[in-house]
Amino acid sequence: MKIIVIGANAAGAKAASKAKRMSPYADITVVDRGSFISYGACGIPYFVADMFHDEKELMSTPVGVLRTPEFFRKVKGVKVMTNTEVMAIDRQCKKVTVRDMTGAVSELEYDKLVLATGSSPIIPCFAGCDLTGVFTVKTMEDAVFLKHAALSGKRACVIGAGLIGLETVEALSAKGMQVTVVEMCGQVLPGVLDTEMAALLEKHIKSKGVNVTTSSCVKSLTGNGCVQKVLTDTEEIQADIVVLAVGVTPNVELAKAAGLSLGETGAISVDDHMRTSDPDIFAAGDCCETINLVTGEKIYAPMGSTANKQGRVVGINVTGGDAVFAGVLGTSIVKVFDFNGGRTGLTEKAARAAGYNVETLLSPAPDKAHFYSTSKPIALKMVADKKTGRLLGLQAVGAGVVDKRLDAAATALTFKATVDQISQIDFAYAPPYSAAMDNLIVAADIMKNKISGEAKGIAPQEVKAKMDNGDDFVLLDVRSQGEYDQVRIAGAKLIPLGALREKMDSLPKDKEIITFCKISLRGYEAQKILDAGGFTNVSFMDGGILTWPYDLEK
Amino acid sequence: MKIIVIGANAAGAKAASKAKRMSPYADITVVDRGSFISYGACGIPYFVADMFHDEKELMSTPVGVLRTPEFFRKVKGVKVMTNTEVMAIDRQCKKVTVRDMTGAVSELEYDKLVLATGSSPIIPCFAGCDLTGVFTVKTMEDAVFLKHAALSGKRACVIGAGLIGLETVEALSAKGMQVTVVEMCGQVLPGVLDTEMAALLEKHIKSKGVNVTTSSCVKSLTGNGCVQKVLTDTEEIQADIVVLAVGVTPNVELAKAAGLSLGETGAISVDDHMRTSDPDIFAAGDCCETINLVTGEKIYAPMGSTANKQGRVVGINVTGGDAVFAGVLGTSIVKVFDFNGGRTGLTEKAARAAGYNVETLLSPAPDKAHFYSTSKPIALKMVADKKTGRLLGLQAVGAGVVDKRLDAAATALTFKATVDQISQIDFAYAPPYSAAMDNLIVAADIMKNKISGEAKGIAPQEVKAKMDNGDDFVLLDVRSQGEYDQVRIAGAKLIPLGALREKMDSLPKDKEIITFCKISLRGYEAQKILDAGGFTNVSFMDGGILTWPYDLEK
Repeated sequence: MKIIVIGANAAGAKAASKAKRMSPYADITVVDRGSFISYGACGIPYFVADMFHDEKELMSTPVGVLRTPEFFRKVKGVKVMTNTEVMAIDRQCKKVTVRDMTGAVSELEYDKLVLATGSSPIIPCFAGCDLTGVFTVKTMEDAVFLKHAALSGKRACVIGAGLIGLETVEALSAKGMQVTVVEMCGQVLPGVLDTEMAALLEKHIKSKGVNVTTSSCVKSLTGNGCVQKVLTDTEEIQADIVVLAVGVTPNVELAKAAGLSLGETGAISVDDHMRTSDPDIFAAGDCCETINLVTGEKIYAPMGSTANKQGRVVGINVTGGDAVFAGVLGTSIVKVFDFNGGRTGLTEKAARAAGYNVETLLSPAPDKAHFYSTSKPIALKMVADKKTGRLLGLQAVGAGVVDKRLDAAATALTFKATVDQISQIDFAYAPPYSAAMDNLIVAADIMKNKISGEAKGIAPQEVKAKMDNGDDFVLLDVRSQGEYDQVRIAGAKLIPLGALREKMDSLPKDKEIITFCKISLRGYEAQKILDAGGFTNVSFMDGGILTWPYDLEK
Repeated sequence: MKIIVIGANAAGAKAASKAKRMSPYADITVVDRGSFISYGACGIPYFVADMFHDEKELMSTPVGVLRTPEFFRKVKGVKVMTNTEVMAIDRQCKKVTVRDMTGAVSELEYDKLVLATGSSPIIPCFAGCDLTGVFTVKTMEDAVFLKHAALSGKRACVIGAGLIGLETVEALSAKGMQVTVVEMCGQVLPGVLDTEMAALLEKHIKSKGVNVTTSSCVKSLTGNGCVQKVLTDTEEIQADIVVLAVGVTPNVELAKAAGLSLGETGAISVDDHMRTSDPDIFAAGDCCETINLVTGEKIYAPMGSTANKQGRVVGINVTGGDAVFAGVLGTSIVKVFDFNGGRTGLTEKAARAAGYNVETLLSPAPDKAHFYSTSKPIALKMVADKKTGRLLGLQAVGAGVVDKRLDAAATALTFKATVDQISQIDFAYAPPYSAAMDNLIVAADIMKNKISGEAKGIAPQEVKAKMDNGDDFVLLDVRSQGEYDQVRIAGAKLIPLGALREKMDSLPKDKEIITFCKISLRGYEAQKILDAGGFTNVSFMDGGILTWPYDLEK
């Protein structure tokens, strides 16, 4: 039994190792065009930032064993050919043509073939991308070059404010560079976060001295051999180095040339066993598409975590086993400076686009018991299906712990949980870890109240639009006088919650009233008090002051 | 509609507030025998440790609003009577007899009654518990007294190494006290962790200078007015203060006197709507029993988090709504010094006692990408049902992040997930949060391998028993020479994994071979290599060196 694996990183290395464990007498060869194998590309920004100095760390197991071709041969029993490019796949004769670094061409036969060809950074079509000082963040070579080019005091421009773009922004800032990030869309992390959540992250990045330019289209890079300027549709940005981080594209040339089916996403089409349109050829990792478990749609969502899971499934199936890879939730997360931001499932935008009857909420709160010394704020945005109460997605941003709320939500999404079910999960509680009611429980409870009509929330964007329109409504701040004196929304009327039952007669019954507080729990109480007092057009503003993405009066 | 709530802490305060929001015209009165209401008892150890100085923090909302009777009246529209004890419940006439602090007795009528009478610390039956300097950790008064009695340089003895006991150990150490903790069972956190996991936590506590005495029975406390000594069955412990932390018991006197059903656990029996045996009386929080969602059995598992969830359910049902509280997973967690430890679902011990066909594993690994600067080790112990592959429980301990793995596992347990399903969850991955394959994914994969028979693990306790028995087997260390030189298990034979394929002929084919490495991933590889090499009696030791709970040679 001969198995050839093309690509020796996450998915390929995993598939080969697993296959050998499943089928110890199989003859397994991994072919890779690079000289570095099985490296963690996701770690490159931290290597660039000098968190560690030896690039070998990126190619080591958690206990420090270096994953070399020698390691694969001796430990895994798998042959690895590096610096060897696969030129073509002959599906008829079941063989691949390879060329090694000397230029020598040979053929390798296979019974089963695995495509783990990965992805490549997209090189934009504007001029100047070939100038010296223009980088991408993908290979070990990129990593080493960028680390040495990132000099303190110099200027860097990162093009693209996605996950890799923002990690690179942090890394280059850590090196002492002056950094500008340019994003074509109107927000950072487009596709990952909804606008108001991205705004909170953007505020933090700016507070660290980074120039953030959104809704800005790069026209060209200019320079005399070395890059010097980034020209956008509105400005000229001086830059000693430029990092292109506008996304990745699946490496499908070999698959395409061999006549394998590609999906509408442009990536290799696979079934739930990771089998391509040829039953003897499997694919895994960044080169293939997968399924969004919430919508059931095919998507392209390359992630190191997914590549490993798919590699394992392929390792089993390629040796005659029967494993399924069900799909992903589009979960992604990024740390930028002292802020975390991520998502699992659908954003509001994506949920609306998919046709759901959407309810949303914003819920800011400390990530631990509020009196615990290391507690820090986070904000959750929950998206649910109004009809069924099913969770559709969760976004979480803030200085505090967001990943655990995302992981719990990802688990809940996997089992198509309703918010009612989520509100009762027995999470691990002690003050160093959460409040007695975890942020996710609070959010689920609010969502239940909203879906039942008991709580009437309105998004900050809608409130802002009403203000900008000059609508006649009362924006009612129910915080304390002390909180109001510190910071407030211009035009809001203050009646502290404790006085509301007594003073509600001072409010007009014929006008819309929108209440809020710091996080809008008191805002919600105020809505309930006014409802009970006979007011008929009252809602509270989601998330309160803490997630108001616009200017505040101080 | 008149609603009386007995008890103004977590469950009672929540039930009253929710009821008022659901039914704004209801007349709601909360009666509490204490003078402090709605305080977070779980925060007491951190108050004692001087993490904050104002006990009002424990009675505040996350945004700093103090929850006084005035607050409940003005904001929540709920009347709170403090320092008022309920003497009796007359179910026939639907009224309660109360006595206020002046001794005046009166009667209050109800349509619906809520019991949120909480729990009390168990006072052991040995002599001396009434001496000055003997404390419990439950009320605000306890908190203030203990904080002032905890003097630097003095000696404290904590009796009971459960969750509250260990939090108190940390608090008193933080105050500069010399602390001894005495536990009757053979391990710390009995009932929370299995022995080998508890051993890892105990090692850490000892490393902080705390004396930990397990399997030790306190016989009496002695002293001349003030406590001076703790006498156990084996020793005398000098102590300037003693903290009793041997557990809590539900406050059921009122319920019992009123003829309401108690469960076998001794706590108030309720249905899934939190209704007692009297349809007009509900109960919530520490005074009532609940259901273990894994086994379906009734248990007594008082937790602040559960009390809040149940209070909400009661608030809805008491006003005519229809909410269900399904049960709990026995999730608990504790931070002690720089170590975290917790559990959700069943321990191995509990799972075996419940009759499951149990498979377990130990999986230690860094909590983040191994190269990430703040990554720290954690160890997971997973317990699954061999027959169905269903997760039964997860334990997690270590210096790294354990709570997020517990929360994801708690979510998975809620949906009766199999380890196969867990192994594919799309968790949030980036190097600051986890390895590409999260610890929980790795554990689930190993569990799948074990259940399928592909991986043959053996628990460290079993290996130790074989060694102690003098069994004839090969304990095979497959780490590197360098790792071996640093630390090793006495009697183990070293063949680094990379040399195993070449040197396997030096091993006896007729003997049992048990392989291990640092975390036993290489140990597992070694098992596979030897299996393929024709060895028939090979297994790897779960968790490797990192979770070996016995002595190591250095």
